[in-house]
Amino acid sequence: MAEPYPFLKGHGTENDFVLLPDHDGTVHGALSPERVVALCDRRAGIGGDGVLRVVRTAALGIDQDAEWFMDYRNSDGSLSEMCGNGIRVFARHLADEGLVDLSVPLPVGTRDGVKVLRFDDDGTITADMGRPRVLGESKIAVDARTWPAAHVDMGNPHAVAFVDSLDDAGRLFDEPSYDAATYPHGVNIEFVARRGERHVAFRVHERGSGETRSCGTGACAVMVAAAVADGVAQPPADDVTYRVDVPGGTLAVTWTATDRALLAGPAVIVARGTTTL
Amino acid sequence: MAEPYPFLKGHGTENDFVLLPDHDGTVHGALSPERVVALCDRRAGIGGDGVLRVVRTAALGIDQDAEWFMDYRNSDGSLSEMCGNGIRVFARHLADEGLVDLSVPLPVGTRDGVKVLRFDDDGTITADMGRPRVLGESKIAVDARTWPAAHVDMGNPHAVAFVDSLDDAGRLFDEPSYDAATYPHGVNIEFVARRGERHVAFRVHERGSGETRSCGTGACAVMVAAAVADGVAQPPADDVTYRVDVPGGTLAVTWTATDRALLAGPAVIVARGTTTL
Repeated sequence: MAEPYPFLKGHGTENDFVLLPDHDGTVHGALSPERVVALCDRRAGIGGDGVLRVVRTAALGIDQDAEWFMDYRNSDGSLSEMCGNGIRVFARHLADEGLVDLSVPLPVGTRDGVKVLRFDDDGTITADMGRPRVLGESKIAVDARTWPAAHVDMGNPHAVAFVDSLDDAGRLFDEPSYDAATYPHGVNIEFVARRGERHVAFRVHERGSGETRSCGTGACAVMVAAAVADGVAQPPADDVTYRVDVPGGTLAVTWTATDRALLAGPAVIVARGTTTL
Repeated sequence: MAEPYPFLKGHGTENDFVLLPDHDGTVHGALSPERVVALCDRRAGIGGDGVLRVVRTAALGIDQDAEWFMDYRNSDGSLSEMCGNGIRVFARHLADEGLVDLSVPLPVGTRDGVKVLRFDDDGTITADMGRPRVLGESKIAVDARTWPAAHVDMGNPHAVAFVDSLDDAGRLFDEPSYDAATYPHGVNIEFVARRGERHVAFRVHERGSGETRSCGTGACAVMVAAAVADGVAQPPADDVTYRVDVPGGTLAVTWTATDRALLAGPAVIVARGTTTL
């Protein structure tokens, strides 16, 4: 059995993560895929959509203009670049521990480069998710039904389809098919319903994971697709914000006049302790 | 936000639980269903099939001949009597903390009366699950297929059907139907495959929960049904033991000449800490 080492568990709109504090890289060194899988196991482990190792860039010898690095692993143990809800939970942890100055933007290193976060007085944490790319129209099919879908790239590919109701979205997700010529490496599929002015709700089928409770890049892609459908210019003349509901909670996405997507929402730590996994 | 309070997480063959140490009943008092639901939530909480509050019988004013009481709650917040894997994890925790003498049988109070556990040198923990009752034959149907099923009661009802292979058991579990006259309050359904002499494997559809990774009473019911099919007397002339594989691991069930079912297997604590849920 391993020596006990520290962990935390937290989530952003129910995208949940096991955090491993390892500031100087001396606790885990090369974190093994097997340990990540064991930690994320929802029955035999702690459970999570992924692991966020909390480590200083200096300890990793990474040349990024950020003190902290989010070493993100998928629940299957593989490396991942970025996670919009994950990085907000990561920032929550740094804030809880008094490790960062909440009054200025926080740069966080990731395998997709440095990301910048902001702490708001109401507890919301906002992540700059980068530039959305609206790449035209595709389509999604389930059984004999098809929907037009906006092709939006947020660093990863999305197909955003507007539907009348999300009530039967669970069934829709059984076997959604997409245009493999447009998405040779697969695609994240969002079904979106209008809820009001600048207010949408969606359910997401994540590439490789199936339906999840939330998806940060998906929320950005959905907002951008909705804004374009609403006649917003690309990029917008002024910052425009939509409320975006997901099964796990509520997010707000702002598409700025500088052509960035900002993902805002709650992020909480719910437990902390030690584990021998 | 609540004050941080202690928790542990553990599992027995991947039946997993959040344990709440509350020895004198002063931490939680009347543990609310809402808190149980929050703790068991696999995304927004810690995650578990149930909560085991660890409290002294004296603190609850319960007249049972046991120092410790397992206050078991289902993940939906409701009260429950007993859980064969849960009580083994409960005993593991008491042993880890040095709160019990491992060299003698351990009585643990439950809402189903006092249960007795045993610690073996190899780390196995065995729970006396009481007297099995073999109540005849019923049947299980999925789509157009039907199987004869042994009706075994372990304090809760079971229908045990033998099949050639468990490979398609996931599909079998979509909509299994049973004889409502035999089981007016529903039934736990086990599909069992033979693996060798006194060695079976099963998958279980738990009443109200769907398929789970393990089921302690189910393992006992399966073993008894297999033993009866193998011509073992009721009760056996001598203690007889079967290996019983579940998706979450391996158990051993002994049916004693005194007509008791003993459930033996691993039980581990994987994490501990504090939570504000």
